[in-house]
Amino acid sequence: MATSVAKAVATLPVRSPVVDIHTHLYPPFYIDILKARNEIPYVRSFAPDNQLRLVNRASENGRPMVPHFYDIKTKIAFMDYHRIDISVLSLGNPWLDFLPSDTAGQVAQAVNDSTNSMCAEYPGRLYFFAALPLSAPPSVVFSEISRIKRIPYARGIVLGTSGLGHGLDDPNLVPIFKALAEASLPIFLHPHYGLPATVYGAYGKDYGQVMPLALGFPMETKIALARLILSGCFTAVPDLQIIASHSGGALPFLAGRIESCIQHDRLMESQGKIDDPTRKTVWDVLKNNIYLDGVIYDGIGLQTAAAASGVDRVMFGTDHPFFPPLDGGVEWPSMTINLKAAKDTYGSGADYDLVMGGNAARVLNLR
Amino acid sequence: MATSVAKAVATLPVRSPVVDIHTHLYPPFYIDILKARNEIPYVRSFAPDNQLRLVNRASENGRPMVPHFYDIKTKIAFMDYHRIDISVLSLGNPWLDFLPSDTAGQVAQAVNDSTNSMCAEYPGRLYFFAALPLSAPPSVVFSEISRIKRIPYARGIVLGTSGLGHGLDDPNLVPIFKALAEASLPIFLHPHYGLPATVYGAYGKDYGQVMPLALGFPMETKIALARLILSGCFTAVPDLQIIASHSGGALPFLAGRIESCIQHDRLMESQGKIDDPTRKTVWDVLKNNIYLDGVIYDGIGLQTAAAASGVDRVMFGTDHPFFPPLDGGVEWPSMTINLKAAKDTYGSGADYDLVMGGNAARVLNLR
Repeated sequence: MATSVAKAVATLPVRSPVVDIHTHLYPPFYIDILKARNEIPYVRSFAPDNQLRLVNRASENGRPMVPHFYDIKTKIAFMDYHRIDISVLSLGNPWLDFLPSDTAGQVAQAVNDSTNSMCAEYPGRLYFFAALPLSAPPSVVFSEISRIKRIPYARGIVLGTSGLGHGLDDPNLVPIFKALAEASLPIFLHPHYGLPATVYGAYGKDYGQVMPLALGFPMETKIALARLILSGCFTAVPDLQIIASHSGGALPFLAGRIESCIQHDRLMESQGKIDDPTRKTVWDVLKNNIYLDGVIYDGIGLQTAAAASGVDRVMFGTDHPFFPPLDGGVEWPSMTINLKAAKDTYGSGADYDLVMGGNAARVLNLR
Repeated sequence: MATSVAKAVATLPVRSPVVDIHTHLYPPFYIDILKARNEIPYVRSFAPDNQLRLVNRASENGRPMVPHFYDIKTKIAFMDYHRIDISVLSLGNPWLDFLPSDTAGQVAQAVNDSTNSMCAEYPGRLYFFAALPLSAPPSVVFSEISRIKRIPYARGIVLGTSGLGHGLDDPNLVPIFKALAEASLPIFLHPHYGLPATVYGAYGKDYGQVMPLALGFPMETKIALARLILSGCFTAVPDLQIIASHSGGALPFLAGRIESCIQHDRLMESQGKIDDPTRKTVWDVLKNNIYLDGVIYDGIGLQTAAAASGVDRVMFGTDHPFFPPLDGGVEWPSMTINLKAAKDTYGSGADYDLVMGGNAARVLNLR
């Protein structure tokens, strides 16, 4: 009997692990840095409940820093409850961008090492995207990239859209992108800055955080990706790999329009950068350099992402610990909605496996 | 023989006309108004070729005002060459928004009447979206809406995202939206203002007009639609019908995220407007109040639009006379690319007919 069960199990198809590619954690060490600050961004407790909150902008009340944001046991419990096998952690925004030049390198080392230690406590369950000390001198950045390559559970780096302060089409970033590509470290690209509040109009405040979160974040990501593509960066660094948050922030939907505008503009104005005959098209980049997470909250968006980049380039994610269950439930809607989108789109076949973890495991070498 | 051919023809399926829902024309009368202006927007000739150009922003060279922009014979020739049966003309941006309050009403009448006269020259080939004198006193606006309802070839109105100057979620617009809904006049919503140039960064100018046209325009439209939805406008005016330019500027792709953010925010902050239990969801509005044009330049975008709103709510368009053939060719890429997107998506079946003209003919009563 034991033998036949073993045989039956051996003939079952090997299912990919469920991998969450978009899940944030602030190591306690990092929270302490933010607690010690007097300028935004900072963490402090607010009346009436003395809840710790992370304040990223003067205009906001801040994010409640509940244990889901910093406690690794809580993260594992979230994973267990929702049957997530592996999480690839990333530091949440604002990352290390605010650090002074002379301490950024040391802080980055400490943050990356402490995240690695957390991962080591749960072997095979946790990996992470490391943080770069972008405000430090270039030599410090390059040195940290070399170090990250050897950190056991690091699988790439997390990056905002500001880069060195001038956006991702900044030519000074190209050597950093080259170093990342040579180290086979993909970039997990995440928004933070949104759009100027004026675009939401006089009544924008009536809609809570909906406009900046639902529209500002994806538009920031899409603009950053378009600037990267137009800058010629993917010609200069053909092996650069980017995992784009929130399914690329609508880049898949607008790729045709962008490409059409480029064709028109290069003929009309003969602009230097976009007139380059070696230019990669938006579609080339979507199919060769960009992976898209599946944090899009609907099957229509997920199908669009897979159609644009290929079903072998879309990776499930939850954006935990954002969108918590606020109605007293225990299931996190960011998990259940994005899981339902994948089920609705792919049923339970091979493509479902790819999106739910197979792609992430293959691309990031998760064992 | 003659009888059998007649029988065969009679049994052929009746094909819908090909309708171009997104095609601009500046009546010569309107060009003259812009020629007489010294402030932006204006039309004037520029060295070295004395080409007339429409300047909408201080930062741009202006659009060359070739005959495609103002000459109705050229429009008809474009339609004939590309086998477009019917065009629903709209005044291009900046419409009448810049007019002083005391003359806006008269100019709107003249612009709308002169466009109707053009349509009357080609019965059954041309209809149009009329312009509203939004800078005039409300009584003038309401009076022009009543008049438009009776103009033979008018089939709705064209509207920018600024409305009365404060965006489309301005409560002062609700009575105007009610009047339009009661008159069964749909709104053709078109972008003009884009996003603040800062979002394109220091290198944005290297990419010509690609960022503002390819990303700024659709993002402006998407933000305007989201603000409309969040304002509760579609609850206050349940019959309001909007035909959104450029397939809604990525609203179909991001609808899931927006809805998810609303759910989260209303539970967390209990905001007044989005906490309204009679609130229509983004999906409700997409399927009941919004039509999407097919000006998206790729089958992936077109499929996404149809999945979000329904294939009975997507309407082919060319955005003529933008994206002209600059390489010496005679085929306009805005026609051929958007036509190819429809063919790739639907082959030549019933859905193709709906998108290419059946929907527009039904919704706008084009005979």
